[in-house]
Amino acid sequence: MDHITLLGYIAAILTSLSFIPQAWLVIRTGRTDGISLLMYAAFTLGVACWLIYGLFIQAFPVVAANAVTLTLAVIIFTVTARERWASRNAIR
Amino acid sequence: MDHITLLGYIAAILTSLSFIPQAWLVIRTGRTDGISLLMYAAFTLGVACWLIYGLFIQAFPVVAANAVTLTLAVIIFTVTARERWASRNAIR
Repeated sequence: MDHITLLGYIAAILTSLSFIPQAWLVIRTGRTDGISLLMYAAFTLGVACWLIYGLFIQAFPVVAANAVTLTLAVIIFTVTARERWASRNAIR
Repeated sequence: MDHITLLGYIAAILTSLSFIPQAWLVIRTGRTDGISLLMYAAFTLGVACWLIYGLFIQAFPVVAANAVTLTLAVIIFTVTARERWASRNAIR
């Protein structure tokens, strides 16, 4: 593998796995105060598009990286949405 | 432009621009409670790698999308790091 391809793999691994500490943090603490729900709505949809795109062009690294990211993004989005919903009901 | 390429562009736009509401939220409110600093450290580094990778392979969409994302990720990381640092000093 040449250096440029290696850099691409490092980039894919870093950006995909970076969502692990964020997912773990929201699961463990349930604190989603500073998290933008709109961000995770758009981001989750975008990553789903990347995944379908990767399947179409048959690019394994694109599929693998985005499958991991999609799973983590869905977790973060779901926990954040549930917390927002719960706190909205608590105010009423 | 074929449908698959269009899907790739939609994916790139969604995942890049999704960080705008998050950056705006932390700038406006200064609330970074639920945000994982470790996530933004790894993510920012990863996006920087994507950007360099895009420059090497001369892929304009990769460069453009990651230049936007890098700017937003740096903002979110900086505000979050500053808040953590300030609250740590406040405790002492």
